[in-house]
Amino acid sequence: MTSDGKVCVLSGGVGGAKLVLGMSRVLNSEEFVVVANTGDDFVHLGLHVSPDIDTLVYTLAGLVDEERGWGLKDETWNFLGALKDLGGETWFNLGDKDLAMHVERTKQLRSGCNLSQVTKNLSSALGVKITIFPMTDSPVETTVETDGGPLAFQHYFVRDKCNPKVTGFKFKGLDKARPTDDINKFNGEKQRALLIAPSNPFVSIDPILHISNLKETFKESCRVKLAVSPIVGGIAIKGPAAKMMTELGIPSTATEVARHYSGLIDGIVIDEVDGEQVRQIESLGIKTFVTKTVMSTIDDKIGLAAECIEFIDYLARK
Amino acid sequence: MTSDGKVCVLSGGVGGAKLVLGMSRVLNSEEFVVVANTGDDFVHLGLHVSPDIDTLVYTLAGLVDEERGWGLKDETWNFLGALKDLGGETWFNLGDKDLAMHVERTKQLRSGCNLSQVTKNLSSALGVKITIFPMTDSPVETTVETDGGPLAFQHYFVRDKCNPKVTGFKFKGLDKARPTDDINKFNGEKQRALLIAPSNPFVSIDPILHISNLKETFKESCRVKLAVSPIVGGIAIKGPAAKMMTELGIPSTATEVARHYSGLIDGIVIDEVDGEQVRQIESLGIKTFVTKTVMSTIDDKIGLAAECIEFIDYLARK
Repeated sequence: MTSDGKVCVLSGGVGGAKLVLGMSRVLNSEEFVVVANTGDDFVHLGLHVSPDIDTLVYTLAGLVDEERGWGLKDETWNFLGALKDLGGETWFNLGDKDLAMHVERTKQLRSGCNLSQVTKNLSSALGVKITIFPMTDSPVETTVETDGGPLAFQHYFVRDKCNPKVTGFKFKGLDKARPTDDINKFNGEKQRALLIAPSNPFVSIDPILHISNLKETFKESCRVKLAVSPIVGGIAIKGPAAKMMTELGIPSTATEVARHYSGLIDGIVIDEVDGEQVRQIESLGIKTFVTKTVMSTIDDKIGLAAECIEFIDYLARK
Repeated sequence: MTSDGKVCVLSGGVGGAKLVLGMSRVLNSEEFVVVANTGDDFVHLGLHVSPDIDTLVYTLAGLVDEERGWGLKDETWNFLGALKDLGGETWFNLGDKDLAMHVERTKQLRSGCNLSQVTKNLSSALGVKITIFPMTDSPVETTVETDGGPLAFQHYFVRDKCNPKVTGFKFKGLDKARPTDDINKFNGEKQRALLIAPSNPFVSIDPILHISNLKETFKESCRVKLAVSPIVGGIAIKGPAAKMMTELGIPSTATEVARHYSGLIDGIVIDEVDGEQVRQIESLGIKTFVTKTVMSTIDDKIGLAAECIEFIDYLARK
């Protein structure tokens, strides 16, 4: 099963990282790259936090807390306790070990490295062989517009636990952001596939696709374009994707995820519980691959990654 | 035992903090202030660290690790371990809880607060009622000149464990530094006493005295000026003071400490093991008070503080 070019996985945090981990057992590190959303990066307590990159790096390094899906296993929280005693801001969970990542990233960024280089340095230090490209080296700030007013993404997501009703999104800086040199170089050659991980379409994947003309560029450079639906049986396995769809007046279905990406994707992997939506999705001109998409165990992750590759090869032959 | 005005204690880190803790049990919080050296403040990993202020605050808050004399008790070191895995700089010991202080201080400084205000905020958050004034709100950087070339103070002190041979000191920024508004206000009234804690004369006390005309100002504003010798039996209880004196060609004796401060102090508290130096010191025109100055227990600290007050009252009557 050889093919020319690489697979590019677009990923947000937890769900994307699970698929990427599976992919790392199915393809070797030269066969694929990951483009990570940085739209929910933010500066907290003076530290540059890149939640999606961190989740990817920690997951690939085997350091992630698998129960939570984010942050480090065997984490301690003594910094946060002491910060509370000092009257500091403690709504964002910063573990003692995790803090090293943010402090070191911030230090390297201040010394003049761009986020691409810093991500390489930190991945490499933790022995991660998979290539992770930040979507851009420029700052992009996601604002979630809600019935209670606009909220910085992490305020919406962590502090307010996704409770406010979503009315839309704004991505400050996205209009000026450019893809990184690494992404441009990737798109300069014909590649095997673009694979959209089961991440939040609105706040994880759209920011990536909306950088400059990246959506069109990926469409041209990649022979096959496919997505894995993050919506399974009407709900999101992790995060507020389904809630957001409902609040935006969109049915929270795999079909609507497919419609969201229509014009870009050739195929979508959906869960077997959504098998009855196949005809509806295929009527959009999008092929479907129905399987078990919930990734609880490492075997689930490897299995889904292998099926994505199988589907890529199938779509490439069409 | 009432007197007009306050006592101002000039302090570096561990030794000074011990005397200040004793003083806090002898005087009430309206009767004295502490002026802390900030010449060994530095920015590490992007964080503003104020070692002497931290030691004072932690000691007064009852949080200090008494065995080490600095840092927090029940500290954990998981941040540092994770930073090591990332290839970061780990020569400076940053505990997980201690980090909260540096992160919050840095955040408040970046938001526009000066170090005076930040010190008040952080002291107050930890329930410290004693007033601590940084010597200045401007950056001062201590360089230790050694036979191997100049070293930033913390490189000399922590990284290189005071091993290099000292040839001199430089204090970058000291020529432009001004005393804080609080110190100027303090010196605007007649005060009870200036008490130089048993801190390092070269790198803890001199930076304070050499700010602007602070030495002369204290001399005028304070009725009585006295010091406690940090040199006991030819050695320093903590830190490199004795080693520095020897390397600078000065005998490491209480007499030389007295000589170092001559022209400013009226009296010096020396240890009973140095009792034979009384005549020599008094020949400099400096009165002596001989007692046990090693502060191991809380009773030692209270005892020495009480004796300093007794000596202040004695000197005031002369």
